[in-house]
Amino acid sequence: MFENSERTDIAELGEFGLIKHLTENFKIRHESSIKGIGDDAAVLNFDGKEILVSTDLLLEGIHFDLAYVPLVHLGYKAVQVNLSDIYAMNGVATQITVSIGLSSKFSLEAVEEIYKGIELACNKFNIDLIGGDTSSSKQGLVISVTSIGYVDKKDVVYRNGAREGDLLCVSGDLGGAYLGLQILEREKLIFLENPNIQPDLEGKDYIIERQLKPEGRRDIVDLLAQMEIIPTSMIDVSDGLASEILHICEQSGKGCNLYEEKIPIDPVTYETARELGLDPTVCALSGGEDYELLFTIKQEDYPKLKNDVDISIIGHITEKNSGCKMISKSNMVHELKAQGWSAFKG
Amino acid sequence: MFENSERTDIAELGEFGLIKHLTENFKIRHESSIKGIGDDAAVLNFDGKEILVSTDLLLEGIHFDLAYVPLVHLGYKAVQVNLSDIYAMNGVATQITVSIGLSSKFSLEAVEEIYKGIELACNKFNIDLIGGDTSSSKQGLVISVTSIGYVDKKDVVYRNGAREGDLLCVSGDLGGAYLGLQILEREKLIFLENPNIQPDLEGKDYIIERQLKPEGRRDIVDLLAQMEIIPTSMIDVSDGLASEILHICEQSGKGCNLYEEKIPIDPVTYETARELGLDPTVCALSGGEDYELLFTIKQEDYPKLKNDVDISIIGHITEKNSGCKMISKSNMVHELKAQGWSAFKG
Repeated sequence: MFENSERTDIAELGEFGLIKHLTENFKIRHESSIKGIGDDAAVLNFDGKEILVSTDLLLEGIHFDLAYVPLVHLGYKAVQVNLSDIYAMNGVATQITVSIGLSSKFSLEAVEEIYKGIELACNKFNIDLIGGDTSSSKQGLVISVTSIGYVDKKDVVYRNGAREGDLLCVSGDLGGAYLGLQILEREKLIFLENPNIQPDLEGKDYIIERQLKPEGRRDIVDLLAQMEIIPTSMIDVSDGLASEILHICEQSGKGCNLYEEKIPIDPVTYETARELGLDPTVCALSGGEDYELLFTIKQEDYPKLKNDVDISIIGHITEKNSGCKMISKSNMVHELKAQGWSAFKG
Repeated sequence: MFENSERTDIAELGEFGLIKHLTENFKIRHESSIKGIGDDAAVLNFDGKEILVSTDLLLEGIHFDLAYVPLVHLGYKAVQVNLSDIYAMNGVATQITVSIGLSSKFSLEAVEEIYKGIELACNKFNIDLIGGDTSSSKQGLVISVTSIGYVDKKDVVYRNGAREGDLLCVSGDLGGAYLGLQILEREKLIFLENPNIQPDLEGKDYIIERQLKPEGRRDIVDLLAQMEIIPTSMIDVSDGLASEILHICEQSGKGCNLYEEKIPIDPVTYETARELGLDPTVCALSGGEDYELLFTIKQEDYPKLKNDVDISIIGHITEKNSGCKMISKSNMVHELKAQGWSAFKG
């Protein structure tokens, strides 16, 4: 993947040359970006706004496997994962910093692919790249992204604002990213056993895109604003629905009832889970990486969003002592447990 | 270094438990820190201020060698390196985010040491830790820090403001951090050859501290404010004096005369360079990691700082066509070249 007839050694450019080379096509879009790359720190100016900052570290072999993740998608995803955190505050993402550690196996062309993905995400989501750091690495690829944004004080949404009776809502559909990963892992194993076999990804485009090219739900933040809904709590679904619901309930000091039949699952996700002998609901609850928005709204806001096909109402908030429950399709009551992907397991 | 009779497996805590455990003693000090750790993003509020954000990625085997860097110092230094960038804008650093990738060789006690160093730096420099990310790593230790600060619009200092005739100034002394590293490397080699030989660091405390425990020069920013001096340009000395002077000259479209005899070098630095057969001036010019502040001031501000023992006037700014020159002790004129440490060499 990193072999290229035009291979250029990164050492030829030096650190400053590399940053300059990689970022010269990026545009500065926001008046608030007073100073971007090229000084010791970036200077931003937001009058009377709240500033949002979020950061993520992505490590080769832990968060991604270069055997099947194209570098352009990796750059795109590294940004999206961060923007998603800003959107989860009901905020507008405006700037990012990107730090990258590169081992000697990476050519300049390989790094350019990563930055192409970063640029695609910046263009699509109207983001300024305002700083960062590049370095050699003895140990594979390391990407650290920090995103910055703002939100009007009256609009900021935390995890801890859910109240009894609030409706539990989620955007899009769940479990797809996890099943996309399972398919990619399966094809990698087949390829390693016999490199002559072509990957069989037919009909799996949707879930593979969910894994490789997730999109932060800025559109949902915009939609909620149009509907004049300020959620009472919100979080992005990075670790799986169950884990995120538990975060909201714990931080709000509440319980919840989640209805299994209401959890939005795409037909491709459903069929793939069945093919692989997995329970589609478990994939949605524990799969993670969907980057949808999970939020709670007051009941009085229900009429405003009830007809939106991209938002599902999946349950409601209860008092703390009721606990966090899932009511199954067969009407059994289960305690909701976080079994999401943990960076320290496996 | 990581062996400990109280070894606790990080996996026992899980990611959220680890962050909570590591950060529960950190205090939030600033009114501007509306929301720190515990949500998707941090929320800051600075009315009418400019926001400063800086980020650095530190990788094991590249930026530090755990054979001789105590973890507590590593945590401290990771923060200082970042704060230094905010100070170099003439700003006040107020918040940081810290992301850490940890391989399985690290016990909880080892990570606690790192965070102890981070906390020391936060306490000493009045900084809020407001977010971050921890993850397992297949690649040794990875630390990414982003720092955030503010500065009044009228006080912000860039690299590009130097004007002809301005005086070139630097805080503290130079070359010490580089020579501290040389001593640590020497003792490591001796230790590897014969583990029974005790390290011989006598009389080297100062330069070893310069390497292991550098301090961002917030005091210089405060001092300049007291003196009512706004530098015309400023940068921190992370890559060596020569490299930083060239940055200022290039970005300001100017040249300079640097006087070798004016470069501040501590006696321990000087003696150690001689011992190791190195030129002390070259160590100051190219050594890096001193984290002093290099800045230019208008000539009319000279009387305000001429008596300060912690600031040296080392040259002046010339027109672009004169080039960037160093006048040696023997009155020879040399072209100034950046030969500083580069992350992509060696």
